[in-house]
Amino acid sequence: MTKKFTVLGGGSWATAIVKMLCVNQEKVGWYMRNSDAVGFINIQKHNPNYLTSVTFDTDKLELTDDINKAVSNSDILIFAIPSAFLEGELQKIKGSLKDKIVFSAIKGIVPETGLIVGEHFHKKYGIPFENIGVIAGPCHAEEVALERLSYLTIACADTKKAKFVAKNLSSSYIKTKTTNDIIGTEYAAMLKNIYAIAAGIAHGLGYGDNFQSVLMSNAIREMKRFTKRIHKIDRNINESAYLGDLLVTGYSTFSRNRMFGNMIGKGYTVKSAQMEMRMVAEGYYATASAYKLKSSFKKKVKTPIIDAVYAVLYEGKSASKVFKGLTDKLD
Amino acid sequence: MTKKFTVLGGGSWATAIVKMLCVNQEKVGWYMRNSDAVGFINIQKHNPNYLTSVTFDTDKLELTDDINKAVSNSDILIFAIPSAFLEGELQKIKGSLKDKIVFSAIKGIVPETGLIVGEHFHKKYGIPFENIGVIAGPCHAEEVALERLSYLTIACADTKKAKFVAKNLSSSYIKTKTTNDIIGTEYAAMLKNIYAIAAGIAHGLGYGDNFQSVLMSNAIREMKRFTKRIHKIDRNINESAYLGDLLVTGYSTFSRNRMFGNMIGKGYTVKSAQMEMRMVAEGYYATASAYKLKSSFKKKVKTPIIDAVYAVLYEGKSASKVFKGLTDKLD
Repeated sequence: MTKKFTVLGGGSWATAIVKMLCVNQEKVGWYMRNSDAVGFINIQKHNPNYLTSVTFDTDKLELTDDINKAVSNSDILIFAIPSAFLEGELQKIKGSLKDKIVFSAIKGIVPETGLIVGEHFHKKYGIPFENIGVIAGPCHAEEVALERLSYLTIACADTKKAKFVAKNLSSSYIKTKTTNDIIGTEYAAMLKNIYAIAAGIAHGLGYGDNFQSVLMSNAIREMKRFTKRIHKIDRNINESAYLGDLLVTGYSTFSRNRMFGNMIGKGYTVKSAQMEMRMVAEGYYATASAYKLKSSFKKKVKTPIIDAVYAVLYEGKSASKVFKGLTDKLD
Repeated sequence: MTKKFTVLGGGSWATAIVKMLCVNQEKVGWYMRNSDAVGFINIQKHNPNYLTSVTFDTDKLELTDDINKAVSNSDILIFAIPSAFLEGELQKIKGSLKDKIVFSAIKGIVPETGLIVGEHFHKKYGIPFENIGVIAGPCHAEEVALERLSYLTIACADTKKAKFVAKNLSSSYIKTKTTNDIIGTEYAAMLKNIYAIAAGIAHGLGYGDNFQSVLMSNAIREMKRFTKRIHKIDRNINESAYLGDLLVTGYSTFSRNRMFGNMIGKGYTVKSAQMEMRMVAEGYYATASAYKLKSSFKKKVKTPIIDAVYAVLYEGKSASKVFKGLTDKLD
């Protein structure tokens, strides 16, 4: 199988994935909408804005700011665009995506449809599930830049495709495993951002490490109940793609979601925290979607942490009071 | 049930437990072998060496450096002495412990017998299991001093006793739950120290947060397999007493076990790291015991992390090589 990869996105995670693919591929397509950045990379051999320490052999790169060119020249598309901008980019594509293999490296919900990315590709663009995959962490892009050992889980209903993508992302510092749990890994990746917001709120309110560990212990149990209701399969929630991903985000002081929560805990309003950060944390949308989704479950699932974050972010409730109430529901 | 509590130990965890009990009890016994410290507390109203910010109403305290007096005046003994010194203290006791309720707040192995503390009390001192309990975390004593919300799990085969002790430790900043899984909580508390050493070694060797999260995700699965083999009951390993306790230690830069591992990872020999720290981390003994125990299992259990820490600490193997090998066994 010789397949041409193209990564779509100009951020740190996109940059990290291009770096990983360059180890194994002669040519790697790379689309970003920022034409200045494309020009910069071609000359300076590194991304001007993200992971600037990573230098590229530009002979290997097929850089473009034309998404249609990027798509038509590729077999496997890896999307690493913030979920809030995904649909805007997809709208630019003139040809069909039906014959493409589409992997999502996005951890979030598409705001326009309220769907996780895989479902969005399937329902809105008619891509069959066997051609849809997910690249799951736990993985900070910054550590990939430093070539620190990281583990990825590659999910696809079609095991062959999962293995092929996994092989091409692997290197001396990237270990990969595969799974067919595309729904579970994607929901877990989305939920963990909500739990990272919760961790941030708790920290901002002055709760300490003891509470943080109890929060994470409750979060993983909540994630298990939630993903089980969404898609019941034999899944060990303590594997890296679920628990590992929760921990790397929940314990990271660099996580935008945790930082956003921290500001809320410290007394910022949602609006002012968002303005201060100059972007919306993925977990903000994820909270609304997860809450809506769980409210639609016929057989109810207890999700005290999602409920608490929702109450703070969307119902204007006092973080301090809501979290006081939450502490009684955790154990 | 009016029962008299006595805490045995002069360290930070003992001090924290005395603080908790003082909220609910008129009188609390407190034994420590350091007579100077006893004298100091009676006058200055705080422990001279640990959690010095915690002031006590000394009218409530029955302080003594005489362990026999302490034991004979009490119904419930809470041991919070480092496991390395426990047997030496117990040897001083002249009367029988058989009619006492004995709770362990010690996370480790008694070096003289290689047993966890509960088993040691049972086998060596003939205390029936229904009178033995465990106070499990996740809980840094330092956060109790600051009255930051913390959760404890109180384990005892006799539910009534577990609930009584739990009630007396509870307060506005301490929430408690009970379990009958005394064996599981104690082994988990001991194993987590080994995993904290592993986390420290990895950090010392230069592995980053991505790897740390994978290590913890593998550690909790290893803990599940190990505790299941030791004592098979219906146990959710993601509850606070197991996963929470692992996380609060594994992610704490204050953990002595993690610090010890970190020094090993940075190139110290075991001896020089111990000398530098001026005490032996609990996990050091735990590693030998856990390794010996798992080697005795008829039906083998995969414990790659324990094996790796054992190889580094007891077989003189290179931490760098052993952990390189370990990375291939994790996923």
